[in-house]
Amino acid sequence: MNERQTVADLGEFGLLERFAARIGAPPEGETWSGDDAAVLRSPGATLLYTTDLLIEAIDFESRYASAADIGWKALAVNVSDIAAMGGRPHHAVVGLGLRADCPVATADGILDGLLAAASRWGVALVGGDISSASALVVYVALIGDAEAKPVRRSGARPGDAICVTGALGGAAGGLALLRGDAAAEPHARRRLVARQLRPNARLEEGRRLAALGATAMIDVSDGLIGDLLHLLDASRLGCSVSPQTVPIDSDLIPLGDTLDPLGTALTGGEDFELLFTLAEESVQRARGSLADLGTPVTRIGTTHKGGRLLGDRSLEAAGEVGWDHLRTR
Amino acid sequence: MNERQTVADLGEFGLLERFAARIGAPPEGETWSGDDAAVLRSPGATLLYTTDLLIEAIDFESRYASAADIGWKALAVNVSDIAAMGGRPHHAVVGLGLRADCPVATADGILDGLLAAASRWGVALVGGDISSASALVVYVALIGDAEAKPVRRSGARPGDAICVTGALGGAAGGLALLRGDAAAEPHARRRLVARQLRPNARLEEGRRLAALGATAMIDVSDGLIGDLLHLLDASRLGCSVSPQTVPIDSDLIPLGDTLDPLGTALTGGEDFELLFTLAEESVQRARGSLADLGTPVTRIGTTHKGGRLLGDRSLEAAGEVGWDHLRTR
Repeated sequence: MNERQTVADLGEFGLLERFAARIGAPPEGETWSGDDAAVLRSPGATLLYTTDLLIEAIDFESRYASAADIGWKALAVNVSDIAAMGGRPHHAVVGLGLRADCPVATADGILDGLLAAASRWGVALVGGDISSASALVVYVALIGDAEAKPVRRSGARPGDAICVTGALGGAAGGLALLRGDAAAEPHARRRLVARQLRPNARLEEGRRLAALGATAMIDVSDGLIGDLLHLLDASRLGCSVSPQTVPIDSDLIPLGDTLDPLGTALTGGEDFELLFTLAEESVQRARGSLADLGTPVTRIGTTHKGGRLLGDRSLEAAGEVGWDHLRTR
Repeated sequence: MNERQTVADLGEFGLLERFAARIGAPPEGETWSGDDAAVLRSPGATLLYTTDLLIEAIDFESRYASAADIGWKALAVNVSDIAAMGGRPHHAVVGLGLRADCPVATADGILDGLLAAASRWGVALVGGDISSASALVVYVALIGDAEAKPVRRSGARPGDAICVTGALGGAAGGLALLRGDAAAEPHARRRLVARQLRPNARLEEGRRLAALGATAMIDVSDGLIGDLLHLLDASRLGCSVSPQTVPIDSDLIPLGDTLDPLGTALTGGEDFELLFTLAEESVQRARGSLADLGTPVTRIGTTHKGGRLLGDRSLEAAGEVGWDHLRTR
């Protein structure tokens, strides 16, 4: 391939054919790309359906995210949504808006990242659309199913324990490093940057927590405070959260001079950890259930019918609320 | 509402809430917007899954398409893909990329158009995503099912009749009028512009043709020649098409001075008519079956194992091949 070849040289259909050849063959009875719509076996009686849109300079910067990073993240954030329902992802369609002068190598790189993530989480890429655009646009729409009852945001009960998987703030720390707003030693930098550019989706964790009876669940995409407020709004509950218990990504600690670790853990978005509620007596079982995955479970508080407290402060006032694309970044 | 209010004033969540309130309540057991993923009852054993992306200045011009036109078209083109499989659409997710200074009235208008089209074709809007963007981006991903076997592009057999619903070239004629490249008297102008801005999807027609045994089917989005080549490529066949039989939108005839009617019917995209093949002896039944819908069926040729002819010319050479977003518009 000519390294300078652009997507305009190939054209939409040339690019679609190139992609279709890499996506592989569908199982007997299915049709993936190459027709008006993909034909699929239905994954089960209950469908989960989600979509996320990533736009250059808003949701990622091509200056520091490789094409494969962008493709990976576009699928990972959707898988995380299915994980937060306790479900299993199946079939994805992908849309790309590409500048006419976009190198074919970049388009290939996006597909590399999409396919790597698809392979990681058992997703089939079954179709898509490509258009010309003035900035890079990548979206994924993902279908999944739930073995048991999907875990909604609205199911928390008063007195439930509030827990979170893993550690928080790493993705925002990675973003600060990429933007040159902070510095870290090489190992910590690599880990934090990976949290930003190659997010994990807690898929197996979500399924096990659903099976254990998690009453409500959401993935931490907007930041702990913002997403906890979403869950509490949906469940119409208050909370008491202890800031000392919030699990801070340990790589953030040495950045304390330039980036407040607790503040970053509370409001930094895109960690894609699972924030969930469950009965008090199930917390130990949840810890035990995720132990072999190496995924810690930390209890950070309790739901109740009163106000929303982070320590002795109002949760709403305690931080900027989340990650609101249209207002700020 | 303040007329000058922008989407940045409302923010992503404000806008999502505003939209969710208009989308209505899901049936018992389903969850639509407001959670990590929509929870749906599966539409059947076979899923149809498609997506289309529309980008400002590439796929539409905000100068002549209203916000509601854009929303309508974004859903209609996806419904047309399901129609071309002989299927029935069910659930859609929608993504919007909006400029921060986009008026809320524009965002509302896009939803107006989406909801009008959703109501027209029995689709539920069950979720979506919103991001900031430098140009307006609208995409839809649509799930449907097929009662019978989905009609693929690849099923044509040698000796099948090649037929098309309705008339062709109107959408391209409307685009020429909107761009000032042609002029027409008011009634014809209104009809042609509607073909461009408010396309119809031949949904009921597609289902009836599938039930009648159409062997292959595709919707005319790239232009008759381009889409016929897609169908023939998938079915590995040649054809003889008679140019005199191609149904030309009658409103195009008076534009003959500025726009060649037959050329426009052959290569103009976005008519969203159905191009299909079926056994010779079923053509009359197809005509009869669509008569009460007021939809003509025109036979334009025959498939065979030889070359691809339009009259005495090569089909490939007879016109520019379709509507290739990345190369030209």
